[in-house]
Amino acid sequence: MNDLSAPPVEPREPLDSADAMERRLRWIGATRYHALHPFHRMLHGGKLTRGQVQAWALNRYCYQSIIPIKDAVVISRFRDRMIRIEWRHRIEDHDGGFETEGGIERWLKLTDGLGLDRDYVESMAGALAATRFATEAYVHFVRERSPLEAIASSLTELFAPTLHEERISGMLKHYDFIKPEIMTYFQRRLDQAPRDAQFALSYVREHAHTPAERQAVCDALTFKTNCLWVQLDALHHAYVNGHIPPGAFRPEGM
Amino acid sequence: MNDLSAPPVEPREPLDSADAMERRLRWIGATRYHALHPFHRMLHGGKLTRGQVQAWALNRYCYQSIIPIKDAVVISRFRDRMIRIEWRHRIEDHDGGFETEGGIERWLKLTDGLGLDRDYVESMAGALAATRFATEAYVHFVRERSPLEAIASSLTELFAPTLHEERISGMLKHYDFIKPEIMTYFQRRLDQAPRDAQFALSYVREHAHTPAERQAVCDALTFKTNCLWVQLDALHHAYVNGHIPPGAFRPEGM
Repeated sequence: MNDLSAPPVEPREPLDSADAMERRLRWIGATRYHALHPFHRMLHGGKLTRGQVQAWALNRYCYQSIIPIKDAVVISRFRDRMIRIEWRHRIEDHDGGFETEGGIERWLKLTDGLGLDRDYVESMAGALAATRFATEAYVHFVRERSPLEAIASSLTELFAPTLHEERISGMLKHYDFIKPEIMTYFQRRLDQAPRDAQFALSYVREHAHTPAERQAVCDALTFKTNCLWVQLDALHHAYVNGHIPPGAFRPEGM
Repeated sequence: MNDLSAPPVEPREPLDSADAMERRLRWIGATRYHALHPFHRMLHGGKLTRGQVQAWALNRYCYQSIIPIKDAVVISRFRDRMIRIEWRHRIEDHDGGFETEGGIERWLKLTDGLGLDRDYVESMAGALAATRFATEAYVHFVRERSPLEAIASSLTELFAPTLHEERISGMLKHYDFIKPEIMTYFQRRLDQAPRDAQFALSYVREHAHTPAERQAVCDALTFKTNCLWVQLDALHHAYVNGHIPPGAFRPEGM
């Protein structure tokens, strides 16, 4: 994995082709994706207490719970029925059905397994304000920017599978309070994310026609990496450095 | 000043009158206003380097620059012309006129005085993503919530004058790179904020008719205190604890 202490030099290659854009997108992932964040290294390396893992899981719930809302907004941006059909399964993946489990339900099994009260998690009353602002910024982004940028902002999924593999093995290995059955969210995303990422990548490659549009695609990915990074910075500041803001979740003993 | 290490107990008084609501609002200010944040204590107590003060000023520019946009949205929520007239001067206070200086221009004199490039500050390219999300959340809040909540979210101004007085005296005393002429923003807000706060307080006292509406007013103030607190948490994490995120401003030597 790349290390931020020695960031690669930003490529100055002009964005005059889909290939050049894809190289830039992969460079953004390699330098800004939250897999690089020190909080993740601590999480996956077994360096966190149960209370700190609880704080991560209940904050990350805000992100999980907003994804199908975000995806519904994305769908609403397209008059092209084929795109809406292609995108629709993302809502289903997260919301599930009346009798089938989705990503949000799987996430709540994780928070259950960590001993958190489900009503408290779902209320988001103890979540960090920074988490709320960052996740809501994602919804506003896909509502307010162009449909092309809305799709481009999902491209962090290109980089998710490696992170999820590290997470599953790292957390199962290091934490005795993490059981395989509460990690099903990430297992499932290993299958879902690559298909979704491939569609989004093909879409932006085909529909970004000018250097300015390709730059907008890259900026949308940067925006999204910021959404993810901010959430970990806020967790790190509150629960590693100990600056828990007024009203936020306090693990036992902190 | 109150200290967060010994927070007062939340009043359980029902919100059955304007007086009870005002007491709750003042309690929220006393426990959540960003005057209590450790970063402010460092800023006013002369504990920051010039680079850290630069980071504060260029991030805070994002907040300053969004205020007249937020106020234009507030105005747009009211069919009552008298409210629009009352609120309009807030845009003028911040934007100034073709030949008169407003709050944004005064803020840029502060960043100029700190040696920051004006184009760089105005581009917000080096601002923390958390700052952008928190300030944009404020605009979205006044657009999406009720007009009553939009006005209530401005009530942090009730608590601003004391903070600004501390800031002016503290920064002039402790930093040789801070001159009186670059602190005119805060001098001016000492006159403007109390008038504005008094109008907003009278408005919510008169227009919040039910306990639920009074609770919504209180929650709007809590939301706004979170907007301000998140900005200082992000500065603290990046520039005091040294976790500067990818792409953000790096002071010389950090």
